[in-house]
Amino acid sequence: MSIEVNNIHRIKPIASYIVVKVLEETKTTSRGILLPNSKESPQKGEIISVGPGKKSESGQLKEIDLKQGQVVVFGEYAGTLIAQDESSKYLLIKEEDVYGTYE
Amino acid sequence: MSIEVNNIHRIKPIASYIVVKVLEETKTTSRGILLPNSKESPQKGEIISVGPGKKSESGQLKEIDLKQGQVVVFGEYAGTLIAQDESSKYLLIKEEDVYGTYE
Amino acid sequence: MSIEVNNIHRIKPIASYIVVKVLEETKTTSRGILLPNSKESPQKGEIISVGPGKKSESGQLKEIDLKQGQVVVFGEYAGTLIAQDESSKYLLIKEEDVYGTYE
Amino acid sequence: MSIEVNNIHRIKPIASYIVVKVLEETKTTSRGILLPNSKESPQKGEIISVGPGKKSESGQLKEIDLKQGQVVVFGEYAGTLIAQDESSKYLLIKEEDVYGTYE
Amino acid sequence: MSIEVNNIHRIKPIASYIVVKVLEETKTTSRGILLPNSKESPQKGEIISVGPGKKSESGQLKEIDLKQGQVVVFGEYAGTLIAQDESSKYLLIKEEDVYGTYE
Amino acid sequence: MSIEVNNIHRIKPIASYIVVKVLEETKTTSRGILLPNSKESPQKGEIISVGPGKKSESGQLKEIDLKQGQVVVFGEYAGTLIAQDESSKYLLIKEEDVYGTYE
Amino acid sequence: MSIEVNNIHRIKPIASYIVVKVLEETKTTSRGILLPNSKESPQKGEIISVGPGKKSESGQLKEIDLKQGQVVVFGEYAGTLIAQDESSKYLLIKEEDVYGTYE
Repeated sequence: MSIEVNNIHRIKPIASYIVVKVLEETKTTSRGILLPNSKESPQKGEIISVGPGKKSESGQLKEIDLKQGQVVVFGEYAGTLIAQDESSKYLLIKEEDVYGTYE
Repeated sequence: MSIEVNNIHRIKPIASYIVVKVLEETKTTSRGILLPNSKESPQKGEIISVGPGKKSESGQLKEIDLKQGQVVVFGEYAGTLIAQDESSKYLLIKEEDVYGTYE
Repeated sequence: MSIEVNNIHRIKPIASYIVVKVLEETKTTSRGILLPNSKESPQKGEIISVGPGKKSESGQLKEIDLKQGQVVVFGEYAGTLIAQDESSKYLLIKEEDVYGTYE
Repeated sequence: MSIEVNNIHRIKPIASYIVVKVLEETKTTSRGILLPNSKESPQKGEIISVGPGKKSESGQLKEIDLKQGQVVVFGEYAGTLIAQDESSKYLLIKEEDVYGTYE
Repeated sequence: MSIEVNNIHRIKPIASYIVVKVLEETKTTSRGILLPNSKESPQKGEIISVGPGKKSESGQLKEIDLKQGQVVVFGEYAGTLIAQDESSKYLLIKEEDVYGTYE
Repeated sequence: MSIEVNNIHRIKPIASYIVVKVLEETKTTSRGILLPNSKESPQKGEIISVGPGKKSESGQLKEIDLKQGQVVVFGEYAGTLIAQDESSKYLLIKEEDVYGTYE
Repeated sequence: MSIEVNNIHRIKPIASYIVVKVLEETKTTSRGILLPNSKESPQKGEIISVGPGKKSESGQLKEIDLKQGQVVVFGEYAGTLIAQDESSKYLLIKEEDVYGTYE
């Protein structure tokens, strides 16, 4: 399945899912040092939409502490590809995949 | 086992199960870019019926926040095939397999 | 161990176990389309008897929401064979193996 | 280690353990149909003694709902052999291994 | 590491650990039937000392229901060898490894 | 993805994540004894920033007991590389990866 | 990473971690019986410092029931090597790795 990039806003994530637009960054630092790839190298992306949060077994809601527009750092292998064109790529990731925000 | 497509309404999912009719979409975007398949590519489907929700160990019911008629995005490998004919395909999936709705 | 088919009523399932009589259905739809077997193909069966339900660690009972006589759809590989003759087959399955009822 | 069959009464199971005497049954039905062994084929046995039940993390006791003298149906590979002679075989099994009683 | 057999009393097990002296028994019954070893064959041992019991996550203590001097039946592969000489063998086992007592 | 070393302060870890600057130490002791590498050899690093702590299923916050500026000892294979240049290396690690502080 | 043996006191374990100085003991008993190594052979060590204890998900602290100066018996493969010289070896282990104390 794939969704048109310009239809991405029609996806409303549920539970602790988050739609992010991937902000590509070359894997070498500005002074040309290629990151040793033995360690996982995280991704950066902008939040397009967030789910309502996850319900515990007893039905209690744990909201997501992230908002639309924030830039987040998340796992290299995280998420599901839902839309892509020449210039942009969108993923569905989970809140648990996020390490931090980039301000 | 297989069920006649026109008998699909006779299936009443229990717990957090959901019956969906798969809405097939070609795997390339409108401008012909084939999605790189290394990542999982989710499916889209319309909800036919939802279970009552899952009971916790202590018997507390956690209802499903999805309704009949909604279009959902869910995992590529999710679910069990329960009915199929030339033009349609029905799966039994779990609420946990759903990433979001498509409105 | 095997039990005579006509002694099946002597089995009283405990906890969340259920005795079902398997209702065999050919794997192709009426118009001869063979179900692609890559996906799991669930089974259909009639409930003969249900256990009292499962006790949580703290001793609280979570009853089974299914009754004798209901037809259920359950996992292809679920259950234990307890009795069989030329025309019928009986399994012990768990409530968690059931996807839904067929009404 | 092995225990004399006539000393079996000296074993007091703890927690959710149960001592059973295995009641052997040939694996074919009376009309000679050999059970297809692809599925697990459960065992039948008579309860000799039951443990007091299992304590939860918080120390709450969950008693066993089975009694001495009942005949139970349990998993083919369940349990530990503790005593055996020419005519009888005794196992230590867990309550969770039991599918149902045979009345 | 090994501890002198005559220093075994200096070991104070913590949590749900138990020190046992293994009571060896030949693996054949008195009438010479060698136990089929396909099943696990449990061990028998005398309790030398027991730990105070295990604390749950919330700090609640679940005491051990076994006492010094009792003879217990426990798993064949359970425990850690802590002391041994020509005539005796001592193990550190966990309460969860014990199936029952032998009275 | 990689972040400029001088932008490291823009990363705000979430949940129980921590940004550390790795303080490299040769693997041999001052008197030249090379540590046998069969055991894991932990890393040392200075805390740059800590997340707010992790929320339990019921939404209760468990704060991190570590602060910016503390030097911590953590697992050899822990963490994700997020920034590096000729003289410094920054990782995102989890609180659970930390063994202790070095004062 | 390695720490000077004379700096070992600068390590403050967190959560349920414990710093121990390993007290080596030959693997044979005084009368020369080599311990059969098929079973795990635990280690003995003196406690140098203990962490504050582990916080449960709900933030409740479960303190460690062990103190500086006690000699403990712990798993053969437990822990992380943090400092070593010709005559001494220090490990970081977890409370769960400890079987008992040696008094």
